[in-house]
Amino acid sequence: MSDVLERLGQVLDARKQADPETSYVASLHAKGLNKILEKVGEECTETLLAAKDAEHSGETRDVVYETADLWFHSMVMLSRLGLGPKDVIDELASRFDLSGLEEKASRNP
Amino acid sequence: MSDVLERLGQVLDARKQADPETSYVASLHAKGLNKILEKVGEECTETLLAAKDAEHSGETRDVVYETADLWFHSMVMLSRLGLGPKDVIDELASRFDLSGLEEKASRNP
Amino acid sequence: MSDVLERLGQVLDARKQADPETSYVASLHAKGLNKILEKVGEECTETLLAAKDAEHSGETRDVVYETADLWFHSMVMLSRLGLGPKDVIDELASRFDLSGLEEKASRNP
Amino acid sequence: MSDVLERLGQVLDARKQADPETSYVASLHAKGLNKILEKVGEECTETLLAAKDAEHSGETRDVVYETADLWFHSMVMLSRLGLGPKDVIDELASRFDLSGLEEKASRNP
Repeated sequence: MSDVLERLGQVLDARKQADPETSYVASLHAKGLNKILEKVGEECTETLLAAKDAEHSGETRDVVYETADLWFHSMVMLSRLGLGPKDVIDELASRFDLSGLEEKASRNP
Repeated sequence: MSDVLERLGQVLDARKQADPETSYVASLHAKGLNKILEKVGEECTETLLAAKDAEHSGETRDVVYETADLWFHSMVMLSRLGLGPKDVIDELASRFDLSGLEEKASRNP
Repeated sequence: MSDVLERLGQVLDARKQADPETSYVASLHAKGLNKILEKVGEECTETLLAAKDAEHSGETRDVVYETADLWFHSMVMLSRLGLGPKDVIDELASRFDLSGLEEKASRNP
Repeated sequence: MSDVLERLGQVLDARKQADPETSYVASLHAKGLNKILEKVGEECTETLLAAKDAEHSGETRDVVYETADLWFHSMVMLSRLGLGPKDVIDELASRFDLSGLEEKASRNP
């Protein structure tokens, strides 16, 4: 799954300059930061509802779909603010010393 | 940044069995799905507020920190439901044909 | 401002039976509880964003408008579950002993 | 249920000046607008989760409790911004012509 988020971050940055008529991401940027944040909040709510439904039905397909929407729109937000997924993942790595694990792993293949 | 999320997913799965007295992740699982979802919602709100503050101050440090919290707790939710970051990233890859790009890249190094 | 919420609660209950083609409230009920809850979450996000904008602009018009949307949709949710604004207001009154104040007030006009 | 929100609005305004050590409302104001908005978002999430649980259990007690928390903290937000419940209720009344109904009612008792 490795570099998908990195590539997606690049795609999102490129689409900031695209035509809002044809690019969904460009249309979000044209509407402004509040519109992007509304989408983040909306997808968060849909994620919570999907998780509650999964708790009862055992069907987790919608949880994956809604979490993908949530991460996607939070990446549009990051891009809007000059950030990218690497910033978030570096932060997570530093908290859990996962970068350290990664270094060790690359030394002991 | 590649495999950090994958490793973090493994750490989160392992900590489901840890002692709730010493592991934050285990303590969330002990409190149940609603507690985990409350944290996802809480971190989403904090992300939105950090983004609004960054809009005015230009200071984006808190956006990174809060988005990391949001992704982290959504990964605890995924783990709770027997899912992991790979499910979400595969979904994102399929939407953007990023897996395709990845295949091509691996064929043309 | 007294009985507006009570009347609105009655209107919302009546519209549960209305034609989803012509009544917005009936259309929400036709789509189900999740759709109603998505609207509650959406209006909550918009309220937070309006409050952050008001913090900087001093312009509070949108805060009133979005909070009205939030209360309105939470009342649709209450109606969906066989509840009404009176249940919530009785709860608030009991917490703050406001019902007590009200009794005293009616005794000392 | 009439004037409970109006009285609560007055109580909330008065407590802005109270001691943060002894008043919960004053402690929220001392922490600032973001803290108040975090509480609004948090209570919204808890309302959604309570509604989902009520859907399955038929037990609506927590929905009332969490909606009361949501309205309460949104009233603290209004108070913070120099607004009050009357502003929101006037907005709702004007949308539904409920003030008009009220006038007619007072003319025909």
